[in-house]
Amino acid sequence: MEISDWRKRIDELDEQIVQLLSQRAAAAMEIGRLKQGSGAPIYEPLREKEVIEHVRKVNPGPLAGAQVQDVYERVMDVMRELQRQKP
Amino acid sequence: MEISDWRKRIDELDEQIVQLLSQRAAAAMEIGRLKQGSGAPIYEPLREKEVIEHVRKVNPGPLAGAQVQDVYERVMDVMRELQRQKP
Repeated sequence: MEISDWRKRIDELDEQIVQLLSQRAAAAMEIGRLKQGSGAPIYEPLREKEVIEHVRKVNPGPLAGAQVQDVYERVMDVMRELQRQKP
Repeated sequence: MEISDWRKRIDELDEQIVQLLSQRAAAAMEIGRLKQGSGAPIYEPLREKEVIEHVRKVNPGPLAGAQVQDVYERVMDVMRELQRQKP
């Protein structure tokens, strides 16, 4: 396979990743709504730690655990932003 | 659905996202190998711009385009790091 073939494969994977991130964002918004209803804080460091531990645990490689964590720290920044938006 | 149910859903999505990120990383490593073989540069700003345009285009929401871009800038940082690793 040439570089252009691998790039097609990456583009296909990216479409699936964006779909799943969008579903994750929709679920995070539901949690945001429930939290706003009950006055619970949006930022929950223990839950975020749990998410990081989980993604590191299920990571099959070749990414290092620290790299998966880097990506997920950005994912959670963005999700927190979304949860703070007014409905 | 309660917060704990949404979190279960998020954990399931995260497992799928990590799987796809891993497949993306494996494809990026193949590209890295081909580039190291031919002496082509690892950092290709035009290709990275194309990736960002693509993920923004296929984004169905609720994330804003800028948020998907934020996540993907981190994804590409990590993939570049991986491509620079010695075999």
